[in-house]
Amino acid sequence: MKRASIVSIGNELLNGETVNSNAAYLGQELLTIGIPVASSYAVADEVDAVVRALDLACYDANVIIATGGLGPTDDDLTRQAMAKFLGVELELHDDLLEKIQSFFKRLNRQMPERNKTQAYIPAGATALPNIGTAPGIRAELKGKLLFALPGVPMEMKRMFEESLLPDLRRFVGGQAVVVRKLKCFGAGESTIAELLGNAMERGRNPLVNCTVTSGIITLHIIAAAENETQAQAMADRQGKSLRSTLGELVYGTGDESLEQVVGEALGRQAKTLAVAESCTGGYLAKLLTDIPGASRYFTHGWITYSNEAKTAELGVPADLIEKHGAVSEQVAESMARCARRKAGTDFAIGITGIAGPGGATEQKPAGLVYISVDSDQGCEIERSLFSYDRRFVRLRSAQTALNMLRLKLNN
Amino acid sequence: MKRASIVSIGNELLNGETVNSNAAYLGQELLTIGIPVASSYAVADEVDAVVRALDLACYDANVIIATGGLGPTDDDLTRQAMAKFLGVELELHDDLLEKIQSFFKRLNRQMPERNKTQAYIPAGATALPNIGTAPGIRAELKGKLLFALPGVPMEMKRMFEESLLPDLRRFVGGQAVVVRKLKCFGAGESTIAELLGNAMERGRNPLVNCTVTSGIITLHIIAAAENETQAQAMADRQGKSLRSTLGELVYGTGDESLEQVVGEALGRQAKTLAVAESCTGGYLAKLLTDIPGASRYFTHGWITYSNEAKTAELGVPADLIEKHGAVSEQVAESMARCARRKAGTDFAIGITGIAGPGGATEQKPAGLVYISVDSDQGCEIERSLFSYDRRFVRLRSAQTALNMLRLKLNN
Repeated sequence: MKRASIVSIGNELLNGETVNSNAAYLGQELLTIGIPVASSYAVADEVDAVVRALDLACYDANVIIATGGLGPTDDDLTRQAMAKFLGVELELHDDLLEKIQSFFKRLNRQMPERNKTQAYIPAGATALPNIGTAPGIRAELKGKLLFALPGVPMEMKRMFEESLLPDLRRFVGGQAVVVRKLKCFGAGESTIAELLGNAMERGRNPLVNCTVTSGIITLHIIAAAENETQAQAMADRQGKSLRSTLGELVYGTGDESLEQVVGEALGRQAKTLAVAESCTGGYLAKLLTDIPGASRYFTHGWITYSNEAKTAELGVPADLIEKHGAVSEQVAESMARCARRKAGTDFAIGITGIAGPGGATEQKPAGLVYISVDSDQGCEIERSLFSYDRRFVRLRSAQTALNMLRLKLNN
Repeated sequence: MKRASIVSIGNELLNGETVNSNAAYLGQELLTIGIPVASSYAVADEVDAVVRALDLACYDANVIIATGGLGPTDDDLTRQAMAKFLGVELELHDDLLEKIQSFFKRLNRQMPERNKTQAYIPAGATALPNIGTAPGIRAELKGKLLFALPGVPMEMKRMFEESLLPDLRRFVGGQAVVVRKLKCFGAGESTIAELLGNAMERGRNPLVNCTVTSGIITLHIIAAAENETQAQAMADRQGKSLRSTLGELVYGTGDESLEQVVGEALGRQAKTLAVAESCTGGYLAKLLTDIPGASRYFTHGWITYSNEAKTAELGVPADLIEKHGAVSEQVAESMARCARRKAGTDFAIGITGIAGPGGATEQKPAGLVYISVDSDQGCEIERSLFSYDRRFVRLRSAQTALNMLRLKLNN
C-alpha cells in the first residue's frame, strides 16, 4: 500500500502563528484516494531542517508532499532544500520567468527583482502551474514521488486538485477507496453518534467517521473494495442507511455548505430572498453571497444595527421596539415582514439578538436570538439561546436562519 | 539556546480529521518563555512510530513535548512508547489508581477496567496531575526534558500551564525573549521585504520574521537578551525602525485586525459609519460587527445586490446606473454619498464590483472593484483589479475599504 508523508515548511507553523490546516486538508484528500498519511513533519525555514525532514519522510512513505517556502523572500528556501536533497542544481526556466512577469503585468506592476528566484527549479524536476506566482515542483527519486506546493492554502489546494490528484491516482492503481460525505446541521456530535449507534465503530468497512467544523457535522463514509464499482455500491448503501436514520438533519453531500444548498433550492424553485439583520450584522448576507450567482435569488439586505435604522429603513414601528425591546419575537417578525414587503421577494429573514459580550440584561442574556422567516405562508419565528462567545452566536444565528429556510424550501 | 520539539500522536491528526491546534498553542507558549520550537512531528498511534519521533525530537531539541495517546483504549500507546524510548518498564502507581477511581466516583460511576492502564508510568518518571483521568508524564534523559501530555486541548493546556511552565522557566534560566508583532496592509510580502532590506536577514538579533494570513502581513520581532528589560528595549528599537521604514503600511500591533483598529479610531473620534455594499454582499459589515461594541459607531448597512435595490433603497439614480453600469466609479460614489445622507453618519463606504466568476465583460473583468469613502471632506474613490477567485476578491475589497477609512481617520 502506498503511504504519504507531509513536510510543512515555515517558522509560522512552529511558533504557533499559523495552525497547520494544510496538513489536515492533505490528510483528508489523500485518504480519499487510498493513500493514508503515515507521518507529518513541520520544520523551520532552514535548508538543512527541510532536507532532514525530506529524508525522514522518504523513510515512512513513497509519496512526499512538502508545502510552503516557495515565496520570493530570503526565508523561502524550499527550492534550495529540494535541490540539495535531490543532489542537483537549481535551473532558471525562461518560460516560468515569463509567466511570473506576466502575472505582475496583469496587475499593472513591475515584477520585483526577487520574484525571479521563483523561476528556478531543481534540474530534472518539473514545474507545476500555480494561480499565484510560485510554481510547484514535482520530482521522482528511487520510485518515490516528491512534490513541493505553495503554503498559501488557496494555491496549495488548487495545485493539489489540478496537478497532484490525477498524478497520484495513476501512481496508486490497485485498490479502490470511495469516500462519501454527508453534511448535517441541527444536532450536536454526541446526539448524532447516539442516533447512529454501532455504525461508527472502528474497523468496519465502510468506516464512518464524524468531524465537526463550525457547527457543521460531516460524516465521512470510507468504503474500500477491489474495484471502484464495488466500493461505490458499499458507500451508497451505507449512505442511504445513515440518511434514513438522520432524516432532515442531513442537508447535503460532499463539500456542500448550507448557503449553497439553500441557494440552489431558491434558484431551482425560482424564488427570491431578502434579509434584515441586526446582531449578525451582515454575516447572513455575506454567507449567501459567498455563492457565485447569488444575484439570481438574493436581491436586498438591510443591516439595521441601530433601532433608528430598523424604523427608518425597514419601517419597524418605533412603539413596537419601545414596548417589546429590539430583541424580541415581535421585532424579529416585523423585520422579516417589512423586508419582504419592501424588497418584493418570496422570502425574507429577520434576525435580532444579543451577540454579546455586552448588551445583556437579566431577562435577555447574551446569546438570545430571535430568527424569523416570512413567506406567503406566514411568518415563522424561532427563539434560540446560544452559548459560547460573540463569534459563535453570530455564526450559529446565520446558520440557523439558513436551516429554517432550507426546511421551508423542502416542504 | 534551548529549543523544543513537539511530537503529536494520533491517527486523527494524519487523516485530517483533527487540525493540530495543540502544536500551534505549544509553539506560541514556548516562544514566550524563550524556547522556540525547532520541529514538530505528527505520528500515528503506533509504538515504533512514536519512539522514532522521540528519537528525532531529541536530535533537534532539549525539551520534547509529546501530546495524545494517553487515553484508556487500545490505541493509546504513548505510555508504552515512552517506556520503550527510555529503556525502562511501566510501573503501576497506587496513588494514581486511587485518583482515577475517585474521578469516576465523583461522577457516580464505576471505573471501567481499562482505565487502570492510565495508572502506569515509566520507571523513574514522574506523573503530572490532570483534570481528566490521564496523568501526564515527566522524564529526564541525558540533560533533556521529556513530557507526555494528554491530547484533549483543555487538559493539555491546563497541564502545560500548571506543571510545565514553572518547570521550563527553571530549565531555561537566564535568557529573556521578547516578541512583538507589527501588522501591515497595503503591500505584498515581496514589496515589504524589499523595503526592509537586510532587517529580515537570518541569524540577526532581534530577528524579524514575516508571515502572511488572508492578505494581512505580520512582522514578528524576536529579541533575545540577558534580561527582560534589555530584550524589551531591543524589540522596541527594532519596532520603531521598521515603523519608520514602512510608514502607513503598518496599521497595528499584536493581534489587531483592520476592523478593530478602524473601530477603535471611530470610537475614539466619536464618528459614525454606514456602508452600502454590492459585490461584497455584507462582508464589510460582517467584519465591522465582528468587533464587540460596534454599535457605538456602526449604525446602518445596505446590501443592494440588485440594481433595483440600489435605486429604491439608497436612491442611486437609475439613469446613472444605465449610463455607466452598476460597476463604475459614478455608482460607487453615489452609493457612499446616498448611504451617508440616509444614515446621517460621518462616514459612509460604497463598494461595487464584479466578484466573479460570472458577470465579467470585455471592459469589466472579474475582480474589478470600485470602493468609495464619503465624508464631509468629499468622496474618495479607488479602482482596484483583484486577481484570484471570488473569495479573494470579496475579502480584499472589504479589507481595502477598511484601509481607506483607516488612512482617512489617521489624517
